Amino acid sequence: MDGVKTLAFDVFGTVVDWRSTIIREGAELSRLKKLDVDWAAFADAWRAGYAPAMEVVNRGELPWTPLDRLNRMILDRLSPQFHLDGLSEAEKDHLNRVWHRLSPWPDAVGGLTRLRRRFVLATLSNGNVALLVNMAKHASLPWDCVLSAELVRQYKPARAVYQMAVDLLGLRPEEVMMVAAHKSDLRAARQAGLRTAFVPRPLEFGPAGAADTGPETSFDVTARDFLDLADRLGA
Amino acid sequence: MDGVKTLAFDVFGTVVDWRSTIIREGAELSRLKKLDVDWAAFADAWRAGYAPAMEVVNRGELPWTPLDRLNRMILDRLSPQFHLDGLSEAEKDHLNRVWHRLSPWPDAVGGLTRLRRRFVLATLSNGNVALLVNMAKHASLPWDCVLSAELVRQYKPARAVYQMAVDLLGLRPEEVMMVAAHKSDLRAARQAGLRTAFVPRPLEFGPAGAADTGPETSFDVTARDFLDLADRLGA
Repeated sequence: MDGVKTLAFDVFGTVVDWRSTIIREGAELSRLKKLDVDWAAFADAWRAGYAPAMEVVNRGELPWTPLDRLNRMILDRLSPQFHLDGLSEAEKDHLNRVWHRLSPWPDAVGGLTRLRRRFVLATLSNGNVALLVNMAKHASLPWDCVLSAELVRQYKPARAVYQMAVDLLGLRPEEVMMVAAHKSDLRAARQAGLRTAFVPRPLEFGPAGAADTGPETSFDVTARDFLDLADRLGA
Repeated sequence: MDGVKTLAFDVFGTVVDWRSTIIREGAELSRLKKLDVDWAAFADAWRAGYAPAMEVVNRGELPWTPLDRLNRMILDRLSPQFHLDGLSEAEKDHLNRVWHRLSPWPDAVGGLTRLRRRFVLATLSNGNVALLVNMAKHASLPWDCVLSAELVRQYKPARAVYQMAVDLLGLRPEEVMMVAAHKSDLRAARQAGLRTAFVPRPLEFGPAGAADTGPETSFDVTARDFLDLADRLGA
């Protein structure tokens, strides 16, 4: 791993725990607004709408649409089913921006802080730039650089996203290591010539969820969490 | 200034002191390689080539060329005159990357650290992303977000550069304040609807240089340095 200069991080699920945050903020909203919502089911349904929406954009069936807007489209579609129709526009906008306020996994800030001493740390996320910047401020994520699919107007796993990171950082592909909890992201990064670090997050989809945490030897590194990743990368 | 959420910083001359750094690194190179170079004159000539080179790109007479490459073209043009022809390719490349290693003005890191508690801090520079990221790492500049003209492939003062910052940050123009030592940059930012903070840097072009530090009442704020800017913005 000697030539690696930059670690490029997937964010949703890899760095931050979207599900717990949505459930926690949702419970608070239920209390304030006297709503009866199954927030775990809502979080899972919201997240399930995410990949298909991005695929519609990548296929060109929808013009470029930042993730904030896709999330809002999915939220609006789910609102009747989850009894959220009574929320005001301001309340819906605030709920939609929960993605800007996601909490990091317990090891994330400590691990990133160690890794940053040795590597340049970049996001490489499908989240739009504003979302990622607000999240970093909220959660004290110590990025050196915020890179987003928005910069090339295509979503991961489109190759152009990984190539953009390599080009903007002025590096060769093998000098960039993609860090993700999702094998599809890592496989696409590897196809673009990047190194790969797999950090499974068994609780991403909840205690009963089906996170794919099985070992896969084709990735350059597999680590339990970001502290273990720092150990393995000598940071 | 109540609605301002993000401060967008010009970098060369405003945050970092290109001239002193080039002279200091040049003196070291002279010592190692037994060169006889007037490094102050060289620094001034190098910097003087910068604006015309960017104008050639903005007029479309040269395809998009990142600043690292423009700097190298100017360096190569100046090499015979400044007796730098004898440097190896690796030495020329290292010299060209002095722009990645520029030292901040003495108030910069302290001022940015205070300002960051209240505002999102972004670069909005003609430097390419890799240059800005390496510089931030080298000089411990605490940016929340690295934005560059490279993202829209036009150089300031093209309006598209300022608009890009507004769009990517998800803000209205008046929520972004451009901070610069150069009035032309601030005037273009104001044309794009941004707020403006003028921080004159009287020594940018050296003790005998002609930095334009005269007061101008049309800017929203004028500050002596970044610590004074933090005072004035309540940070």
